[in-house]
Amino acid sequence: MDYRIETDSNGEIKVQTNHYWGAQTQRSLQNFKIGSDHFPREMIRALGILKKGAALANLELKKISKDKVDLIIQAADEVIAGKLDEHFPLVVWQTGSGTQTNMNANEVISNRAIELAGGEMGSKSPIHPNDDVNKSQSSNDTFPTAMHIAAVEQIEDKLIPSLERLISSFDEKTKDFQDIVKIGRTHLMDATPLTLGQEFSGYTAQLKSAKKDILYTLNNLRELALGGTAVGTGLNTHPDYADLVAKKISEISGKKFITAANKFESLAAHDAIVAGSGAMKRLATALMKIANDIRWLASGPRCGIGEISIPANEPGSSIMPGKVNPTQCEAITMVCVQVLGNDAAIGFAGSQGNFELNVYKPVMIHNFLHSLNLLADSMESFNDNCVIGIEPNKENIEKHLNNSLMLVTALNQHIGYDNAAKIAKNAHHKGITLKESAVELGILTEEEFQMYVVPSRMTQP
Amino acid sequence: MDYRIETDSNGEIKVQTNHYWGAQTQRSLQNFKIGSDHFPREMIRALGILKKGAALANLELKKISKDKVDLIIQAADEVIAGKLDEHFPLVVWQTGSGTQTNMNANEVISNRAIELAGGEMGSKSPIHPNDDVNKSQSSNDTFPTAMHIAAVEQIEDKLIPSLERLISSFDEKTKDFQDIVKIGRTHLMDATPLTLGQEFSGYTAQLKSAKKDILYTLNNLRELALGGTAVGTGLNTHPDYADLVAKKISEISGKKFITAANKFESLAAHDAIVAGSGAMKRLATALMKIANDIRWLASGPRCGIGEISIPANEPGSSIMPGKVNPTQCEAITMVCVQVLGNDAAIGFAGSQGNFELNVYKPVMIHNFLHSLNLLADSMESFNDNCVIGIEPNKENIEKHLNNSLMLVTALNQHIGYDNAAKIAKNAHHKGITLKESAVELGILTEEEFQMYVVPSRMTQP
Amino acid sequence: MDYRIETDSNGEIKVQTNHYWGAQTQRSLQNFKIGSDHFPREMIRALGILKKGAALANLELKKISKDKVDLIIQAADEVIAGKLDEHFPLVVWQTGSGTQTNMNANEVISNRAIELAGGEMGSKSPIHPNDDVNKSQSSNDTFPTAMHIAAVEQIEDKLIPSLERLISSFDEKTKDFQDIVKIGRTHLMDATPLTLGQEFSGYTAQLKSAKKDILYTLNNLRELALGGTAVGTGLNTHPDYADLVAKKISEISGKKFITAANKFESLAAHDAIVAGSGAMKRLATALMKIANDIRWLASGPRCGIGEISIPANEPGSSIMPGKVNPTQCEAITMVCVQVLGNDAAIGFAGSQGNFELNVYKPVMIHNFLHSLNLLADSMESFNDNCVIGIEPNKENIEKHLNNSLMLVTALNQHIGYDNAAKIAKNAHHKGITLKESAVELGILTEEEFQMYVVPSRMTQP
Amino acid sequence: MDYRIETDSNGEIKVQTNHYWGAQTQRSLQNFKIGSDHFPREMIRALGILKKGAALANLELKKISKDKVDLIIQAADEVIAGKLDEHFPLVVWQTGSGTQTNMNANEVISNRAIELAGGEMGSKSPIHPNDDVNKSQSSNDTFPTAMHIAAVEQIEDKLIPSLERLISSFDEKTKDFQDIVKIGRTHLMDATPLTLGQEFSGYTAQLKSAKKDILYTLNNLRELALGGTAVGTGLNTHPDYADLVAKKISEISGKKFITAANKFESLAAHDAIVAGSGAMKRLATALMKIANDIRWLASGPRCGIGEISIPANEPGSSIMPGKVNPTQCEAITMVCVQVLGNDAAIGFAGSQGNFELNVYKPVMIHNFLHSLNLLADSMESFNDNCVIGIEPNKENIEKHLNNSLMLVTALNQHIGYDNAAKIAKNAHHKGITLKESAVELGILTEEEFQMYVVPSRMTQP
Repeated sequence: MDYRIETDSNGEIKVQTNHYWGAQTQRSLQNFKIGSDHFPREMIRALGILKKGAALANLELKKISKDKVDLIIQAADEVIAGKLDEHFPLVVWQTGSGTQTNMNANEVISNRAIELAGGEMGSKSPIHPNDDVNKSQSSNDTFPTAMHIAAVEQIEDKLIPSLERLISSFDEKTKDFQDIVKIGRTHLMDATPLTLGQEFSGYTAQLKSAKKDILYTLNNLRELALGGTAVGTGLNTHPDYADLVAKKISEISGKKFITAANKFESLAAHDAIVAGSGAMKRLATALMKIANDIRWLASGPRCGIGEISIPANEPGSSIMPGKVNPTQCEAITMVCVQVLGNDAAIGFAGSQGNFELNVYKPVMIHNFLHSLNLLADSMESFNDNCVIGIEPNKENIEKHLNNSLMLVTALNQHIGYDNAAKIAKNAHHKGITLKESAVELGILTEEEFQMYVVPSRMTQP
Repeated sequence: MDYRIETDSNGEIKVQTNHYWGAQTQRSLQNFKIGSDHFPREMIRALGILKKGAALANLELKKISKDKVDLIIQAADEVIAGKLDEHFPLVVWQTGSGTQTNMNANEVISNRAIELAGGEMGSKSPIHPNDDVNKSQSSNDTFPTAMHIAAVEQIEDKLIPSLERLISSFDEKTKDFQDIVKIGRTHLMDATPLTLGQEFSGYTAQLKSAKKDILYTLNNLRELALGGTAVGTGLNTHPDYADLVAKKISEISGKKFITAANKFESLAAHDAIVAGSGAMKRLATALMKIANDIRWLASGPRCGIGEISIPANEPGSSIMPGKVNPTQCEAITMVCVQVLGNDAAIGFAGSQGNFELNVYKPVMIHNFLHSLNLLADSMESFNDNCVIGIEPNKENIEKHLNNSLMLVTALNQHIGYDNAAKIAKNAHHKGITLKESAVELGILTEEEFQMYVVPSRMTQP
Repeated sequence: MDYRIETDSNGEIKVQTNHYWGAQTQRSLQNFKIGSDHFPREMIRALGILKKGAALANLELKKISKDKVDLIIQAADEVIAGKLDEHFPLVVWQTGSGTQTNMNANEVISNRAIELAGGEMGSKSPIHPNDDVNKSQSSNDTFPTAMHIAAVEQIEDKLIPSLERLISSFDEKTKDFQDIVKIGRTHLMDATPLTLGQEFSGYTAQLKSAKKDILYTLNNLRELALGGTAVGTGLNTHPDYADLVAKKISEISGKKFITAANKFESLAAHDAIVAGSGAMKRLATALMKIANDIRWLASGPRCGIGEISIPANEPGSSIMPGKVNPTQCEAITMVCVQVLGNDAAIGFAGSQGNFELNVYKPVMIHNFLHSLNLLADSMESFNDNCVIGIEPNKENIEKHLNNSLMLVTALNQHIGYDNAAKIAKNAHHKGITLKESAVELGILTEEEFQMYVVPSRMTQP
Repeated sequence: MDYRIETDSNGEIKVQTNHYWGAQTQRSLQNFKIGSDHFPREMIRALGILKKGAALANLELKKISKDKVDLIIQAADEVIAGKLDEHFPLVVWQTGSGTQTNMNANEVISNRAIELAGGEMGSKSPIHPNDDVNKSQSSNDTFPTAMHIAAVEQIEDKLIPSLERLISSFDEKTKDFQDIVKIGRTHLMDATPLTLGQEFSGYTAQLKSAKKDILYTLNNLRELALGGTAVGTGLNTHPDYADLVAKKISEISGKKFITAANKFESLAAHDAIVAGSGAMKRLATALMKIANDIRWLASGPRCGIGEISIPANEPGSSIMPGKVNPTQCEAITMVCVQVLGNDAAIGFAGSQGNFELNVYKPVMIHNFLHSLNLLADSMESFNDNCVIGIEPNKENIEKHLNNSLMLVTALNQHIGYDNAAKIAKNAHHKGITLKESAVELGILTEEEFQMYVVPSRMTQP
């Protein structure tokens, strides 16, 4: 392999010539051989946006020449577009400030810009990774800024659209199923009736509330740390820089961003990430409930509840022929479990800042984006491969409804709770219908019973 | 002991005559001898408010007589005021719908009302626990309603006031300390300077953001399940009841409440509790960071950081005389750890609903109120016994500031990152000052150094 | 109220005369008004055992007079017996070393001993709380010692017996149900048959494995920190003291204890508590699975699975007459959720030691004993009020078994997976039996089918 | 792209000709586009071992021909060796039984074997993926078997060796530092002295205990589910198969494995994985404490504690020149946080089995191996790049020791706790030494003080 010499304040180090990265990235590669978790595409992209924004702000504030900025922007645009992803080889488990990944971006942009300028890679000229690409920045404010850029972009462009498609499917099912009266179940036990549409309306309501909460967390995530530099004071920046760079980042990304009101908070704590993860956890608890309901309602085909059917997308068993399993429900509930685990990690990490810096940044954004992407993808998969194909099994629904003893509740208002209970218990004990029981006990005539007990009337106040 | 006979649909059971409760409470006592966690005062109070509100709504809708309502209200008012707390003996670990605690309220109010009316306790006349006190209700909608009433009252009346006092103390410290320049620390290592006031402003900012998030969760918590009855359909209620009873509860409690838009969600899921706990977790992660900072800054007295001093409220050690420990920080960080554990339990429980009901209601509200009360109390204690007494140790602050090598950062803009690094490394290596190092290396004159490196100027852009 | 003056190194403070506690307890009461969680009886008892053991060891090593020891023992015996519990008023949320609760024990024993000696409470004479009761001790080694004593006693005397009773009940059910062939379910879907006894044998196996793990954690918990004093070095103790005091504690408690091999670990970390909680979490995950199975198997009565019935211990609903709910399953699954939350808190706290001390001791033992007591109590309740009353519903079991399409799996070996799948799918599609389908497709004759498909033969290799 | 037609019981589907996988893998790829988490190498390898073992057992039991087995073994050996990894493209978020990954193994081995035999891929002849490769198996018993094989191999071959290296480094440091007397710290406050070796001995002790616990969990993990087939009954297997296949797997892997005593437990619950994760969590809490201590002890260089120095592996800051950060501590503490989050996910997932199957298998083993690999790698990195390079800063150690007020504790035995406290407080108040204070207060002469207070003597009983 061919190498060139790169340098940093620790001295010289060899880097393969076909890589754009420099000394600090190379050191990190050698010093942190831990696992295989890499930052996802959206973090690399966010760093590109940030570096471009900083260059533009520095230009406007006359801290850097137009020539240099043009070169930086060309290279940064390639980072944004994903053309240089292979030059970001570092793992999550590195320095807790993300310094090495920030330097990775500085080095790649610097070397690519040098190449574009016809210079010699590693020479730091004409574009220096620290003095130019990282100008008016510190890892301590760039990395959390990239975290927020990635979070906002992914929430708006991936999570919310996927959630909205699912909501819209459930809305449709709610409408389609609005007249199908079925037995309700509380404590897993037969209860009073409702419509299948009402049951599904609960799912929609849960998802809509979760969506609202996720959108609310955007308020905090739109605040950028950039301009705080090393400890939050903004040392080595122009007084107008913080506001300006947020504006530039907004323009480049097309998303709303503002500079954080308090930069000390922005570096030393990532409560906005904790809150964002909390909102995703809410979504996960909702999805878990919904997916569990759906697989239970679809259970059977002959020895379960079987009130709905779901699409059979693949053979279910390698030994039991003809078996069809609720695999989409399984995938999404596993995702929900993961999201709760990730949320525990994020909360823990978020509490561990010291003084001017929280050094659990990489593990926080790793878990945050992991949860986000899993939720978005699994909702999409769940929607397309399961929810839209849900069909009621009317025969089973009808059978259950008519058998249920809990229709007796309709009698409370006419004969009191205690008498109603007697009818139900007698029917249960003897294995007879409620009507038969009511008549046998002499509490009601058949006519009265039929007048009082009308399942469909029991589905509203 | 003297007993009376109480009855329910399972038959007769003995209850001591000095208790107001009835058969179902008694059965729960006997069947659930699990631990010693009881619902706190605020849940009992919430049930009293709810029962009174339901009676008033039923009266207005002509579902119950004025005489009965008067009796119910008298008894419910005693429940609200805390006069009957000893008659609520049940533990958290009971039926997952909270049915037994709802019945406990029905039975106590019924028997107390019967007593007020001069009747015979246990006779269910003139006030029947189910048919009168529980009229237009089911445990499935009352218990989650009480959860929300208690949550809103405690957030508004206890958590937020306690948080606001803490914020105000930190605001004051921020102002008091605004001119004290000190060394910053990132990665626990010496970094560029900031003021002590800036450091504390980060704490204030964290707490203010947390407060905003907690207040936001009130939106969901104000929605009441009442009116959904058994499965969310509102069976056995008047069409106007749900709205009306929320209005009554608002009037009684003086808090804003509305009826939930979707009652199926309200019974089968408690995502609003999950979200509320998530917001408290955010507060806990913030408090953990803040309390950790304070104890580290106060560490010593002679072998630690020692930049602030905190009140010495008690002897610190049973063996080391004269030792003073940051005990308030310890108490509140232990609370933070508990809040994260409780949040894990709440998220898990919140995901486990099935069909028309989530049967993890008691464990959810138990953990929610546990977190809330611990946070409120510990912030109060932390504020009064620690924060307001924080004083800067100016001597140590000065000494650290002047010794620090990271003042070299001010030179980046004048001599570049690489030269600045050389000065710092040389000073570190030889144990000399930065100025000495700069001059020795011939990079700067003494005059230049003094002109460029002014700590107080490094605390802003 | 009558007061006396107590003193500590911070000065004088008033204490009500009817309390045995002294200055430091009183200060804690005033400085830590946080929540209402108190250490349970077993921690108070453990402190009594420890103080008695230390006095005896000091006597044997001639560090204290026989007269003093006699007085200390009399008072300590009362603490052990629970006679002085009301004099331990402190909450969990105090100093993180448990110093205040250790001093509480010192003060109560000192004052009670003074009283027995006819002296003046608060005079510290003839028995001084620090110099005598706390002799050769520090909070830093007493509190973790008490944690281990309480943990071992409660595991051996409460948790394991309760678990063993449950195991024995499941063992019995396994035997009783060994010949009842029923449908199996995987992915909630109908699968090949097994016996109800086999299904229950899985529960027994889980519980037995969990028991083994819990017993294993005792090895670590039997190691006592006592003898480490302030930082683990054993300063101010006799070289033989650590071994001797562990021996004394073993004799008093009747449990096996040894002195910890490394006292620095014992003070600065509580990994044995983390491990113990981990083993309880394993038990909780097992119980959650088991209790969930039982309530699902008992679901119905008419619209669920209904293959077993469980005892009806109380009316299930305040609105639906005659409803019976799996309330014991609900209580124990709520406990399981709590145990997982507690385990999260314990792990977090366990990771937060610094240097010579972990100052999350109270929150760790609080959660540990909370989990332990809830598990023990709820297993007892679950066993007595649910498990022992489980009965098979043979009619439903039979019906499900005969309807199932998964009996087709028996044909794999005779006609191959793909042909078997065809038969199952055809039967499902047309709503006919497997036999009808096999014959209709011309794959098997009726005789062949009957020869190959025998459910009871499918329950073993 | 060139395609061939593959079939399963759902019908035909196109697969690219350059892939060995078949219809069910292809369907999974299309139906589960969720995230990018793949099973690691060790799971693929485990499936190869398992398939080979099953083929050999079937051969010995005369269930399959020698010719077929030879072909299967050739293909399985390639899977074991990692030559076919690219043909295992499925993500974790699929069917909860891992059926699709089991079928992936069946299909790849079948097609590769067919290729070796000169047959036509997709023809299922001469080697059928279900009837031959999966003979005497079900996903329900293969996947959990592979989980255990992978877990045991990785624990024995990766986690324990890495842990042992770290233990050995700490052992060495313990010895090297055994005579360096230093100030102790409790509650972050100055306490009585100990040696640096004693401090490090606590770390070693924690790690050794953690190792023991991890090894203990192997007992359970060595039990294999294989032989249980679909629901645990062993349907479609020879009575001797379960024992025999475990023996074959032991021989192939060189690790000890036995058949699980109860197969119903093995399919429906994964408590052994929960326990294994619990033991790793214990290790993580220990590592977190240790790494935190090390970075605090190394904090500074001029404004922190600075009692040790650690290797400077890379430039610490992109803005502060010359800054060196404890990055290895940061990486490993981030790993610890992740392990706690993963453990929460595993516990939750482990509790969610239903009836004969737990369908959270993939998420459980994913988190388990994630934790394992991160711990092993980060311990290696921490050891090589940090621990072995730790050096004491004797100057700072000495300075702190001599300044400390807590040496006063040595006086307790001579002048009592209360007098000692007076000396310490007076010294603290006036900023003088303990000796000066003792003399000034007239409690001791200078000679007495020097005789009583000898730091090195304070490091033992």
